[in-house]
Amino acid sequence: MDNIASTNFENVGPFTRAWEWLKALPVRLWAMAVGFANKMKKLGQDDPRRIVHSLKVGVAITLVSLFYYVRPLFDRFRENGIWAVLTVVLVFEFSVGATLGKGLNRMLATLSGGALAVGVDQVATLFDGTGQPIVLGILVFIIVATVTFMRFFPALKARYDYGLMIFILTFCLVSVSSYQDDEILDMACQRLYTIIIGCFIAIIVCICVRPVWIGESLQNQIANNLEKLGNFLEGFGREYFRLSEEGHSTDDDKSFLHGYKSVLTSKDKEEAMANLARWEFWHYRFGFRHPWNRYLKVGALTQQCAYKIEDLNSYLKYFEIQATPTEFRREIHEPCTKICSESGKALKELASAIKKMRRSTSVINYHIENSKIAAENLMSMLNMTSRWDNANLREIIPTAAVGLILIDIVPCTEKIVEAFQELASRARFESMDDRVSPIDDV
Amino acid sequence: MDNIASTNFENVGPFTRAWEWLKALPVRLWAMAVGFANKMKKLGQDDPRRIVHSLKVGVAITLVSLFYYVRPLFDRFRENGIWAVLTVVLVFEFSVGATLGKGLNRMLATLSGGALAVGVDQVATLFDGTGQPIVLGILVFIIVATVTFMRFFPALKARYDYGLMIFILTFCLVSVSSYQDDEILDMACQRLYTIIIGCFIAIIVCICVRPVWIGESLQNQIANNLEKLGNFLEGFGREYFRLSEEGHSTDDDKSFLHGYKSVLTSKDKEEAMANLARWEFWHYRFGFRHPWNRYLKVGALTQQCAYKIEDLNSYLKYFEIQATPTEFRREIHEPCTKICSESGKALKELASAIKKMRRSTSVINYHIENSKIAAENLMSMLNMTSRWDNANLREIIPTAAVGLILIDIVPCTEKIVEAFQELASRARFESMDDRVSPIDDV
Repeated sequence: MDNIASTNFENVGPFTRAWEWLKALPVRLWAMAVGFANKMKKLGQDDPRRIVHSLKVGVAITLVSLFYYVRPLFDRFRENGIWAVLTVVLVFEFSVGATLGKGLNRMLATLSGGALAVGVDQVATLFDGTGQPIVLGILVFIIVATVTFMRFFPALKARYDYGLMIFILTFCLVSVSSYQDDEILDMACQRLYTIIIGCFIAIIVCICVRPVWIGESLQNQIANNLEKLGNFLEGFGREYFRLSEEGHSTDDDKSFLHGYKSVLTSKDKEEAMANLARWEFWHYRFGFRHPWNRYLKVGALTQQCAYKIEDLNSYLKYFEIQATPTEFRREIHEPCTKICSESGKALKELASAIKKMRRSTSVINYHIENSKIAAENLMSMLNMTSRWDNANLREIIPTAAVGLILIDIVPCTEKIVEAFQELASRARFESMDDRVSPIDDV
Repeated sequence: MDNIASTNFENVGPFTRAWEWLKALPVRLWAMAVGFANKMKKLGQDDPRRIVHSLKVGVAITLVSLFYYVRPLFDRFRENGIWAVLTVVLVFEFSVGATLGKGLNRMLATLSGGALAVGVDQVATLFDGTGQPIVLGILVFIIVATVTFMRFFPALKARYDYGLMIFILTFCLVSVSSYQDDEILDMACQRLYTIIIGCFIAIIVCICVRPVWIGESLQNQIANNLEKLGNFLEGFGREYFRLSEEGHSTDDDKSFLHGYKSVLTSKDKEEAMANLARWEFWHYRFGFRHPWNRYLKVGALTQQCAYKIEDLNSYLKYFEIQATPTEFRREIHEPCTKICSESGKALKELASAIKKMRRSTSVINYHIENSKIAAENLMSMLNMTSRWDNANLREIIPTAAVGLILIDIVPCTEKIVEAFQELASRARFESMDDRVSPIDDV
């Protein structure tokens, strides 16, 4: 039947097909529009800051277009006011750090690029008619090629890439147009003023209307990653040993077992965020010399820990296949769950300490010490080989491998705590140890 | 002594210190300049394409500035020629894909943004004096906020983010300046022409002078990643079992053991490259519908394999500490090295097949089959528990864990081969099987 239908369809003329397609078009377009609107709604619900950002950009553009609508302002700047509009569109970013970084880059680059262009223009005017464009061309070529090459420097690329581009841009605009325009100094100054005005409008709107501080986002991201690992470890302890005691687990929420996956690939994102956060020296809590590198250190160690957790997870899948509880697994059950729960708690305590910017190390150290003791117990159990002489090696090996990974995770969390302590002392986190006693908490 | 010296230094006046600092300044500046020059030299030596790129940008800018230097051209476009210069600076990127993407985005966005602005201007002129800027302001606000919000769509952000920004830019420029300028249509057209000219100059210089195709780079990156894993596996087999037979290894080149690390975090980079590669539909080998998603699939599976290799590596470190050769390790030596060498060869064959765009699957399948046989042997060895009843469990477990990971790696490489075969058939790789016989090659 299908075959006949398709043959029939192929036999009809191209006009009939086109007509069918056209008839279906309004329905399709409507479905597309509805789908698009739904997606937009979801996007806004996922992160309402996006809607705020869009409105902020609209406000900033409306503000800056007053340069055209208000007569006295327009008379002062004339068509150069357009550079202010352009600047707001180009500089206004989602986070304060990105906006500040772009704004400062743009202002400095316009200043230095314009100054160099005026200098080059002075050199070129020393030559006569035909010589002038040739000298100008050669100088422009040399400077553009050099600065373009400088953009490949990793250190410059990370923070000043936009500035170098605007430097080239301003330099080209001013020096090239200097050949046909005699009021070059005036033009460079006008451009600089309007760009400064545009940058300030963008920065002020960005900071004053519900600002998104990327430093805060980075701090939350680092804390959330630690929390994800903590959730995994706690859940793994429960899941793995429930499996061995009750057979297959029921289908309740296991999302915590996948949460850690995003941690594995968050390195680039964290570095980019730290680079932007460095511009946010006006933030009341972070200040000028906030140790963003220390956050990256904690983040890198968290990722190392996440790799180990990826291992654990692969063993968990393995056990879902052969879910027969073994005696060996029951034997090492206690220290394993202890390591999981104590390391998990330590990581979650760390996460909340980072979020609240507090130095509550005694609770964390308490959990770390517990997990170290459990790891030593497990180690000595694994070394008592005589106890499992007649056990099935095929069953012992994966369980023992899980034990070894768990033992490995303990020094890993310890390193994270050390990195946190360095961060806390450098960033002058509030000390809270006197108020909370570890005994109360546990 | 140190203490006294520092006290002395602290006691001298600020002027003396400033003078000391000033005296040392030329030497420091010279050292900085030399260091900078050396870094630039190294950057150029690492990738000479960077130097070529810088020169290409210089050439394109010089070409486009002819609009100012050549009188008839200047008379045609007047100051609007500056948009062409601006376009070349903004659009010219390192790879052809990025330049094409930005160029097409910019041209389309300028066209559509300008058209919408002219339409908005027509609506605004229906109102009288005071009403006009208010209506204009409201419409600009709504459209700017909506398009800014659309930039958050993941699908649009990946490929059209620049276009949406330029759309906002052009729309604002044309509609805002329409309030003071009556020749708005003429202005929009002039801007469009000059931007098209700028884009074409950038694209032509980018393609004609030693082009960098990002599709090729992506293909090489995927192949190199596979090669790194292959090298690791081959090296791991040698290293691990030489350790157990001859004690500590000598200090020869072990760089292959770290090469795989970069594979773990290459996902974002590969996705960005694939997005840019989609613009390169003029490339003679890749064409319009080259299956870049399939490359990403191979890349993702390669990363999964790299995680397993990260595990193996951690065991290698473990063994450098307790380097006593065990009987058990000697027992399973043969299938383990076989898996390593055969999987390694398969991955390296795959890498060269991708680089040459050839479909030489029979050699690869031959290695895969060998590794599968070895994995089965190893599995049955591990299952014969009776043989190691009185062995030391502490010594057996890590070795057996290595064995289990190696067994896991075999289906992993098989999946990569499957993904490659799909890629090869979609991308119409050249079939080479009839020419090479697997026996000759091995």
